[in-house]
Amino acid sequence: MKNSVNRELPDTLMSDLNYKPFKTTNFGNPEIQRVAPKVHATANESKVVSSLAEVVKQTVQDGMTISFHHHFREGDYVFNKVMRIIIDAGYQNLTLAPSSLTNVMNDIVVEAIEKGVVTNITSSGMRGSLGDAVSHGALQNPVIFRSHGNRARAIESGEIKIDVAFLGVPNADEMGNANGMDGETAFGSLGYALMDAQYADKVVLITDNLKQYPNTPASIKQTQVDYVVKIDAVGNADKIGSGATRFTKDPKELKIAKTVNQVITHSDYFKNGFSFQTGSGGAALAVTRFLRQSMIDNQIKASFALGGITKPTIDLLEEGLVDRVMDVQDFDKGAASSMHLNKQQQEIDASWYADPANKGAMVDKLDVVILSALEIDTKFNVNVMSGSDGVIRGAIGGHQDAAKAKLTIISAPLVRGRIATVVPDVTTVVTPGDSIDVLVTEVGIAINPKRQDLIDALSHIPGVPVYTIEQMQQMAEKIVGKPKALEFTDRTVAMIEYRDGSLIDVVKEVKD
Amino acid sequence: MKNSVNRELPDTLMSDLNYKPFKTTNFGNPEIQRVAPKVHATANESKVVSSLAEVVKQTVQDGMTISFHHHFREGDYVFNKVMRIIIDAGYQNLTLAPSSLTNVMNDIVVEAIEKGVVTNITSSGMRGSLGDAVSHGALQNPVIFRSHGNRARAIESGEIKIDVAFLGVPNADEMGNANGMDGETAFGSLGYALMDAQYADKVVLITDNLKQYPNTPASIKQTQVDYVVKIDAVGNADKIGSGATRFTKDPKELKIAKTVNQVITHSDYFKNGFSFQTGSGGAALAVTRFLRQSMIDNQIKASFALGGITKPTIDLLEEGLVDRVMDVQDFDKGAASSMHLNKQQQEIDASWYADPANKGAMVDKLDVVILSALEIDTKFNVNVMSGSDGVIRGAIGGHQDAAKAKLTIISAPLVRGRIATVVPDVTTVVTPGDSIDVLVTEVGIAINPKRQDLIDALSHIPGVPVYTIEQMQQMAEKIVGKPKALEFTDRTVAMIEYRDGSLIDVVKEVKD
Repeated sequence: MKNSVNRELPDTLMSDLNYKPFKTTNFGNPEIQRVAPKVHATANESKVVSSLAEVVKQTVQDGMTISFHHHFREGDYVFNKVMRIIIDAGYQNLTLAPSSLTNVMNDIVVEAIEKGVVTNITSSGMRGSLGDAVSHGALQNPVIFRSHGNRARAIESGEIKIDVAFLGVPNADEMGNANGMDGETAFGSLGYALMDAQYADKVVLITDNLKQYPNTPASIKQTQVDYVVKIDAVGNADKIGSGATRFTKDPKELKIAKTVNQVITHSDYFKNGFSFQTGSGGAALAVTRFLRQSMIDNQIKASFALGGITKPTIDLLEEGLVDRVMDVQDFDKGAASSMHLNKQQQEIDASWYADPANKGAMVDKLDVVILSALEIDTKFNVNVMSGSDGVIRGAIGGHQDAAKAKLTIISAPLVRGRIATVVPDVTTVVTPGDSIDVLVTEVGIAINPKRQDLIDALSHIPGVPVYTIEQMQQMAEKIVGKPKALEFTDRTVAMIEYRDGSLIDVVKEVKD
Repeated sequence: MKNSVNRELPDTLMSDLNYKPFKTTNFGNPEIQRVAPKVHATANESKVVSSLAEVVKQTVQDGMTISFHHHFREGDYVFNKVMRIIIDAGYQNLTLAPSSLTNVMNDIVVEAIEKGVVTNITSSGMRGSLGDAVSHGALQNPVIFRSHGNRARAIESGEIKIDVAFLGVPNADEMGNANGMDGETAFGSLGYALMDAQYADKVVLITDNLKQYPNTPASIKQTQVDYVVKIDAVGNADKIGSGATRFTKDPKELKIAKTVNQVITHSDYFKNGFSFQTGSGGAALAVTRFLRQSMIDNQIKASFALGGITKPTIDLLEEGLVDRVMDVQDFDKGAASSMHLNKQQQEIDASWYADPANKGAMVDKLDVVILSALEIDTKFNVNVMSGSDGVIRGAIGGHQDAAKAKLTIISAPLVRGRIATVVPDVTTVVTPGDSIDVLVTEVGIAINPKRQDLIDALSHIPGVPVYTIEQMQQMAEKIVGKPKALEFTDRTVAMIEYRDGSLIDVVKEVKD
């Protein structure tokens, strides 16, 4: 069977897993019966358990679904400590359902897979040794990749049923009141973890900073928490931030960032009260810097900035150029530490951020979003999941979700080294071209032909040539040549869900 | 059938309504499957509807359960405006499930009952013309009275299934982000209404103050809201506060307040880090004043104050005598307006406040609570629901819930005019004597004999005589005489649930 982005889907697997083929980016207005957790009632007993080993013993059973969040990013200690205990205890057939998997988690997940401890994974993404192992068929069942909004949707609908959530926090009291904003290892918004706290049957908080009761502000509440474990350290404060707090100095990236800003400011969306999501990384920071100057020059103020937040966005808030910052996560210490000081920074959960199956997600109110791409093809389909070698090395993140903005810009170089970014067909479709509006590269821009309004608005920006996406693809091919076709086996190693839970593509096992 | 507080229960009605008799104040540790709402997915369409009539038409059907909150108290305009439309439209057989009913709502509910529009009610309480009508058999089915914590429990377990919640708010944006803290008619915490927002199938926000999107802080979130209606005025700001912002000057009340404070300060609970709930009314404010002085004199600081909050409690917070204030509601402008300024004031929902069926309610962490009584009997059972004439004129509020504190004090005069407060048997058992520790009256105190530790601690307070509760009852009877026995018909007009959902008593129809 093929879906509407022309991807061949594995029929048997699809019917086994009860998948519908991806059809449209329009979610519509269905009525959805939510699910709810089983709650074990407690009164005023302290929830503090003596050790991780003890709490694992009390909560985990073979075959269960366990979850983690990735707010500590590359500074996370919690995931490895819990998984070490689980592996050593010899559990089998677990499903791992974290909000995402960062590089620091790779090796232990590979070990858990090899030992049969983990046989199913759902995640936003994976990279490094884990992506490599999965791409080569290590995991028993296909990984299910879901966007941040889709994970929220799947939790609310019961497609992901979390038995035990292990949630690291920079502070908590003995009853489980906790937030992400205070303490040595503060990371800011608990956005992704708030879903686990609300929907998991058992919620375990893990902290190195036990506070006096009651600990406030309480983003996670005692009404949601079963156990609290104190350990020596939940994370490495220096590695929690993305590192990229400085603007890029790469001339190509700067060129792209400048052009992205020109696209924004020449669009009809650049007016008082507009909203945007810029994302993280040096290039995104550069866009924010250019945008700031344009806002000052044109006396334009934004109503809100959304998503994963960085310090330069907080600067805009403090300067009065942005009225509200809505944080589902924070990418650096500047953004994280500002959260409990600035009343106009609002913590939002992943559902509020991006779930298409609720009464309105913030992504649906976005005017402008800037997203990245590993590959983009002549149908504007975007791949942020697999490399040019077919190996998994990415994450959906909020890509599919935020692409629903009124002006969705893909910011990417035409080529990376000897590898084309603009291609005839992406290796893996993650975000359908239907929701992509403009591609910005260092040589110019390509506008989705279905957006005649943008073609009109953006075709005469000084110094910004407009090409068709096919011309862009040919330019890239001219530079790097035609790559050899990738070889895969018939085995499906990963399912890529669209944000509505339909199947938009699969990843096949790499043939060595 | 009789329950464990020796109340005769109506067998047929009990089995029809699937009630268990009240047995114990100990909730235990059951595992409870929560329920969840049906959600109608929407994207970025504005939710603003042109009129209340239009939104009622779109949402309400015969036989549905509709809810309201009572945070505007006697200043509420929303309830009457919505009910007027519902009555005039001729709906039938509705169940009314507000968090409570204030006096300003009485007449229109009586009208709705008379016209068959409302045939079932569940509430924390009722008074005035409505209590009178119900007590005389006006409502088709018995009212179900539930405490604030029990209402939260019943909503989470599905015993109360709200089809449409009509929630008045002092501010909201077009998508439904709202709080109770900002605006002309701010009332502070949205504590009770947060349950309705989370669990109702349809949530309608009604405001007179439409703010720019996104409106933060968002206590109610756009992910929970279906419709937003702007009307001219949601409430009368002058009547939202309880009025009682000044200390009582009544010598008897002052005497009782002083004794309450002596009981607290002579107990083992009066030490650094203790917690308390004082409630509202002039006498409660006086207790807070006496307690403040004792805290200063003894250099003792409290960890938290809980419940419905008043300005004098905020003063303690600002003086550093209390570390956190946890607001499920705010009783006056001083407490309400401080909420968005003081980071150490935390808004809590009714479940967090008082639900026995979650992973820990704050009432279970309380050291000291001061509660009132219409009657208290020689088994320490308390009535806060029916008057000495048998007519309904009260509310459970958080009475049953907060009585779970380590030191539960009933503060009440021995007699009120020609009516005894301390009686052989209360007219209606609302809170079982098992959870009551000390009665404080103007003549002295009575200590529950099961609390030998308190008898030891409190028997030698200078100027505070200790009596048995039987002696107290006899003193009261000596003053006012033996009242004539009340006459009721066999018909049950109200069921009084204990906080665990079991039946603790019923109210019978008054015989004229």
